[in-house]
Amino acid sequence: MEKRMKHGGDTLSYKHMYNGELIDFSSNINPLGFPKGLIQTIVDDINELTKYPDIQYRELKQEIARYLGCGTNEVLLGNGAVEIIDNMIMLFSRIVVFVPCFCEYIERAEIYQKEVIKLALNKEFSIDIRLLRENIKAGDLIILGNPNNPTGKRISLEKLKELIELVEARNSFLLLDEAFFEFCLKDYDSIKLFGNSKNVCVIRAATKFFALPGIRLGYGFANTDIAEKYNSNVLPWNINSIANSVGLKIFKEADYIRESKEYIKLQREYLTAELKKIKQVKVFETDTNFILLKLKNTNEDEIFEYLLQKGIVIRKASSFEGLDESFIRIAIKGHEDNKKIIQYIEEFCSIKTNIEE
Amino acid sequence: MEKRMKHGGDTLSYKHMYNGELIDFSSNINPLGFPKGLIQTIVDDINELTKYPDIQYRELKQEIARYLGCGTNEVLLGNGAVEIIDNMIMLFSRIVVFVPCFCEYIERAEIYQKEVIKLALNKEFSIDIRLLRENIKAGDLIILGNPNNPTGKRISLEKLKELIELVEARNSFLLLDEAFFEFCLKDYDSIKLFGNSKNVCVIRAATKFFALPGIRLGYGFANTDIAEKYNSNVLPWNINSIANSVGLKIFKEADYIRESKEYIKLQREYLTAELKKIKQVKVFETDTNFILLKLKNTNEDEIFEYLLQKGIVIRKASSFEGLDESFIRIAIKGHEDNKKIIQYIEEFCSIKTNIEE
Repeated sequence: MEKRMKHGGDTLSYKHMYNGELIDFSSNINPLGFPKGLIQTIVDDINELTKYPDIQYRELKQEIARYLGCGTNEVLLGNGAVEIIDNMIMLFSRIVVFVPCFCEYIERAEIYQKEVIKLALNKEFSIDIRLLRENIKAGDLIILGNPNNPTGKRISLEKLKELIELVEARNSFLLLDEAFFEFCLKDYDSIKLFGNSKNVCVIRAATKFFALPGIRLGYGFANTDIAEKYNSNVLPWNINSIANSVGLKIFKEADYIRESKEYIKLQREYLTAELKKIKQVKVFETDTNFILLKLKNTNEDEIFEYLLQKGIVIRKASSFEGLDESFIRIAIKGHEDNKKIIQYIEEFCSIKTNIEE
Repeated sequence: MEKRMKHGGDTLSYKHMYNGELIDFSSNINPLGFPKGLIQTIVDDINELTKYPDIQYRELKQEIARYLGCGTNEVLLGNGAVEIIDNMIMLFSRIVVFVPCFCEYIERAEIYQKEVIKLALNKEFSIDIRLLRENIKAGDLIILGNPNNPTGKRISLEKLKELIELVEARNSFLLLDEAFFEFCLKDYDSIKLFGNSKNVCVIRAATKFFALPGIRLGYGFANTDIAEKYNSNVLPWNINSIANSVGLKIFKEADYIRESKEYIKLQREYLTAELKKIKQVKVFETDTNFILLKLKNTNEDEIFEYLLQKGIVIRKASSFEGLDESFIRIAIKGHEDNKKIIQYIEEFCSIKTNIEE
């Protein structure tokens, strides 16, 4: 499959099909945009572009360590979360995932010709620990989205404890992809709770919550042994100077962080409640800023085309292994946009129903 | 060896040892700085940060294809030239280099556990084709700096023709790292001359000539077969939005490009001539914007310490395989800085000579 088909956020491919500005519900970005002070930061630091970034990223790692509550030498940095996933996969010979999940877990493993064990999430998309127990062995890397993309589900704290006991007992390793962490309802902190385990790595990113997918700043936590291996493999200067400057500012934006969480919470409640009124879709409860929907009497292509005519791009979900063309994923956006998508989904569903009746 | 010891440009590590602004002769960046219009470009496009960059980089590839004179589907993009080197290495099982060379050719190959054949450059640092002929086999990737770092030598056009005939005959592959291309005296264009060969890939970068090491924009040329493989392996969204915006502008800066070439030519002549007057150093003629020096009666550590006291950071060269501690590398910088380094190298050498006498 072409790269562009496997990810949201590619509105450019649909630009010629709509006369106006497209609204992107296909990528899950904080609708409040990035903290406004960043523009000044970027301008102030622009001459940093004429130098190499610090090859050790000393200041940036310190700042991220402060934000994550871990040691500086436990911080991982990547050109987006995906580079961290990639470099972690390099360190292990076998990869275990639960599908549906973010496609790059599988993609990157296949690029390195690693064996990939794909287990199925159960019906309501939670993790079956018994199934995992039967299928892992020492040295495996288990990659789990927390919350998971595209399902929106966070791992319950009880289950996470069980998972960590399991990987410790089996001498395998758990990589939690928490790229959507700050949006989460159940906001227990995996790093604070499980950071003393030698078998856990946690990935986060500026991409989603800080509305900076263009800046490519992924970061994460791992114990110093793993972090050292990671650092000796990662490309030099993998974070650009502007991402470095921005990374020194965003985590201090306490008001922005609070306001964003509150706004997303309200919009999540609104969008979920309104979507549930539409009887032709099944709404999967979400812990984060996107919602997986199952279409009862139509498919992803039909609704995609209809919404595109209205200037809206959604994420078709059949490209996620384990889902079929009856699923779509939509982001939680600003209130006006959310109102629009509800209206158009309702419209579309009622047209479909009328045709059928 | 620690990452920071293997590269220039790490003035941060020496900051505490000098009371003032350090002059960086250890990284080889255009002293004129980046084209000034870029600041406005970055500000104008700042909201691009809230979107993913085009996952296919369609516009950027078109612009680079225009600049390189090749097809859009022959353009490679990397998070710095080093990511292109890395991804090319992934495609081959055995890597052949001539030492001394940029350390990442060897580093990245070792990370992927590829076999590395290290051949020695001859005494004046040119390539011994006979030696290469004896040592390569089908499927090898030969990586050559053109000009080579740290020696500053470009491959002569005649030799390059021989090299390409050789790799074609042997069914091996030549990767020319031309990160310093635009600074070069002998400015034949490998892409225009040899772009029709299926066995050649050429890497360039915004880093050095456009004075943008912080932006991480490497690009290159390969035939569509290799480019397709490269594209299916490379990380998604590997170029950040700002690098994307900047990449759409810099290659159109004809005046800047011409002025930079002229300025470096003059300063190269000046610096070379003045250094040649110092009898305690041997100056290797350079085709680009840095100069390799051999110290006759001192070593890299002594001169490094002396220059650091004067606020100057140079590149010790013993970390390059094939060189010892009698070598250093210095960048060609602005005229005032160049005058300073000549003065201090002279001073240091005459102190050393007086002590010895």
